[in-house]
Amino acid sequence: MAAFYPLPVPFTSMQTIELLVVPRWLVPVEPADQVYEDHALAVDGGRIRDVLPLPFAKQLYAPREVLELPHHALLPGLVNAHTHAAMTLLRGLADDLPLMDWLQNHIWPAEARHVGYAFCADGVRLAAAEMIRGGTTCFNDMYFFPDATAAVVAEIGLRAVLGLIVLDFPSAWAANWQDYIHRGLELHDRLKGTPGVRTIFAPHAPYSVGDAALERLRVLADELGLGIHMHVHETAAEVAEAVKASGKRPWQRLRELELLGENFLAVHMTELEADEIAEAARLGVSVAHCPESNLKLASGFCPVARLRAAGVNVALGSDGAASNNDLDLWGEMRTAALLAKGVSGSAAALPAAEALRMATLAGARALGLEDEIGSLSPGKSADFIAVDLSAPATQPVYHVLSQLVYAASREQVSHVYVAGRALMRERRLLTLDEAETLARAAQWRARIATTDPS
Amino acid sequence: MAAFYPLPVPFTSMQTIELLVVPRWLVPVEPADQVYEDHALAVDGGRIRDVLPLPFAKQLYAPREVLELPHHALLPGLVNAHTHAAMTLLRGLADDLPLMDWLQNHIWPAEARHVGYAFCADGVRLAAAEMIRGGTTCFNDMYFFPDATAAVVAEIGLRAVLGLIVLDFPSAWAANWQDYIHRGLELHDRLKGTPGVRTIFAPHAPYSVGDAALERLRVLADELGLGIHMHVHETAAEVAEAVKASGKRPWQRLRELELLGENFLAVHMTELEADEIAEAARLGVSVAHCPESNLKLASGFCPVARLRAAGVNVALGSDGAASNNDLDLWGEMRTAALLAKGVSGSAAALPAAEALRMATLAGARALGLEDEIGSLSPGKSADFIAVDLSAPATQPVYHVLSQLVYAASREQVSHVYVAGRALMRERRLLTLDEAETLARAAQWRARIATTDPS
Repeated sequence: MAAFYPLPVPFTSMQTIELLVVPRWLVPVEPADQVYEDHALAVDGGRIRDVLPLPFAKQLYAPREVLELPHHALLPGLVNAHTHAAMTLLRGLADDLPLMDWLQNHIWPAEARHVGYAFCADGVRLAAAEMIRGGTTCFNDMYFFPDATAAVVAEIGLRAVLGLIVLDFPSAWAANWQDYIHRGLELHDRLKGTPGVRTIFAPHAPYSVGDAALERLRVLADELGLGIHMHVHETAAEVAEAVKASGKRPWQRLRELELLGENFLAVHMTELEADEIAEAARLGVSVAHCPESNLKLASGFCPVARLRAAGVNVALGSDGAASNNDLDLWGEMRTAALLAKGVSGSAAALPAAEALRMATLAGARALGLEDEIGSLSPGKSADFIAVDLSAPATQPVYHVLSQLVYAASREQVSHVYVAGRALMRERRLLTLDEAETLARAAQWRARIATTDPS
Repeated sequence: MAAFYPLPVPFTSMQTIELLVVPRWLVPVEPADQVYEDHALAVDGGRIRDVLPLPFAKQLYAPREVLELPHHALLPGLVNAHTHAAMTLLRGLADDLPLMDWLQNHIWPAEARHVGYAFCADGVRLAAAEMIRGGTTCFNDMYFFPDATAAVVAEIGLRAVLGLIVLDFPSAWAANWQDYIHRGLELHDRLKGTPGVRTIFAPHAPYSVGDAALERLRVLADELGLGIHMHVHETAAEVAEAVKASGKRPWQRLRELELLGENFLAVHMTELEADEIAEAARLGVSVAHCPESNLKLASGFCPVARLRAAGVNVALGSDGAASNNDLDLWGEMRTAALLAKGVSGSAAALPAAEALRMATLAGARALGLEDEIGSLSPGKSADFIAVDLSAPATQPVYHVLSQLVYAASREQVSHVYVAGRALMRERRLLTLDEAETLARAAQWRARIATTDPS
């Protein structure tokens, strides 16, 4: 580490802190490309107090607890920039089907029959178990009954940005776009001050939300200082149909509605022309790249290398487990890095450090949380995870970032903390009853399987 | 299960067998697309004696041991159709670099300095630990010192096909192509009768092996009944250079040398014209698809859907850990299925059952072992693995094959058997000293890291 550190003043009394974490490697993400050895993370009051060389830490701090992680990399919790957490109950219900067959004959009928508050609460619980076990500490959600999601997240101590979903058609959650907005605003007000939970407007997609709703959302987003989270240009067919119907690409329509800006997170973005990429950069739009979902549904290839070269902030999402089929950001990081190389034709495209940044700090920035999470930086919330690299599949270790992105798996995450609170230690969940969560998932399975045609 | 089963004759004495495995789900791979419930696998003398409904198994067999696997899928051991196992010691030594920089400045210098019998033995040991822990029971190897690989494999009880490597240039293993062949044949003779170990000729690639060596190998392969395992058309550049130098695509040259046939396994095959695909099908050539390596090195996209549509047998390989960076066939299955959909533009391409078949029976067939391994079929060797699907990330289970390919990870493999012998139980390795293996890997790391420029 090149950073200068002042010697501690002698005879100063040591400061008592809650926790000192002493990992084999400390990966702060910011500054980029850095891996510190012989460093410690000082945690107090739910926040990162310090990141400093171990000898200084021992002189400065009197921790109530020391967490020794001799084979582990310590890094910021992963940020899943796009998912539909409750859909985890539909994981693998129907696969290997053309998109419309999958949606119309399996997913939509199952949703119409089963989605309600209880489905969403139990689905989010299962998703949370998986996410925590895989090192995800913050997720950006878009689904019905965000109130259920909020309740589960708050109870478990995870961090989430809840999409206030808006659609032009009715669901069990709301009757019409005005009702969606109304229910969303109610929830937004109710959640004010709830730790770890934020809200974001989530108009589903250009093809499912009309101009009237979008114009209203633009005004409300400005008034309330909220972001907007939306599927945009997921497939070529979607763009072609819009052009055929209206003469406009959806991107152009959203721009004309003045929705595109720094608080806008566009999900998927597989179909982009050069001027749209330049515009995304100029306007400060963030992109949520979901590589495994895009591949699995044959949606197209998001031009990640070109977006990044233009200066666009690109975050990483798993999408829902019904189309992925997991919420594993390790898989998404690796697939994003590999796919960027394959698609661009350059083995140097999207190196490991940048894939990790997409899954952490870029996600935080896309959600307006970059001052709060996304890196191990003093002052930020103590959202961090440890990854045990001692397994044969991640040995030997020449370069920690390579190992994390190209060889590590979700099961190697050993510890997960959010705001200084342990959600998992040594792979044991501490704030969520795993057995009960699985039992409820099994009950839903029994109900859902009998009504699916496959 | 629709198969007819005769009722056991009453009063017949029960047959004593070594082991009865009772999984939640039994995935035989052959017949395709089948998942049996309430079935058992009967094992005796290292072979699969029977696959049958549990009530019949209880009446017919008196097992010395019953292995109850109430949350598990039981399937044939995975077959890695292409790897360089010893290179696991170079895992992550240098990443995110253009191919030639990676090879010339990192991999080749490290190999020149360090490769010898001890490097290969220790590297294969580390690879074996990773492979067993990930459910791979058979691998097709291509590297120097196959004698070291053979010794480790025989000691551990894994199954391998050892490439008798041939190159036109010298290495620590041999001085010239005649010497490579000579040493290979010596090893082939020495290994006759060694259980679990076979040999295959492994001329490295068209650009690194001349006509004289290939002509000799063709004659020897016929005489000895051995297969041929070769990198072919890995990149567009390699094909273009051959055309520039000789006027011929490498495929054409290999065909004119009469190397292409049912005993030929072509690795990578990213650059293929329609007539070459048709020819591969007509001649019975097998292909080893290495999707993660091809992406990571930006080598191109193997046209898997077109090859399979033409009737070509396509197996799955991890390639070496230096370019992947693991030996995880779960990752390769998923990437193969996802990539085939993305590249072909059809979400229905390469369904889960076919990805699993590539990683099992197609691999067995590519290696001439389809009568011995690759499916849970009576009479075959008892090479099988169990996968525990009870984790949140693989719940609920609607379709077992989807879950295995799209959601399961290597760490969910709980038990691994080869020829009826347990190599791993409850994730504990039984025939390999993991701590010593990791300690040796750490020693190699220390030596290798000091000489690498990165």
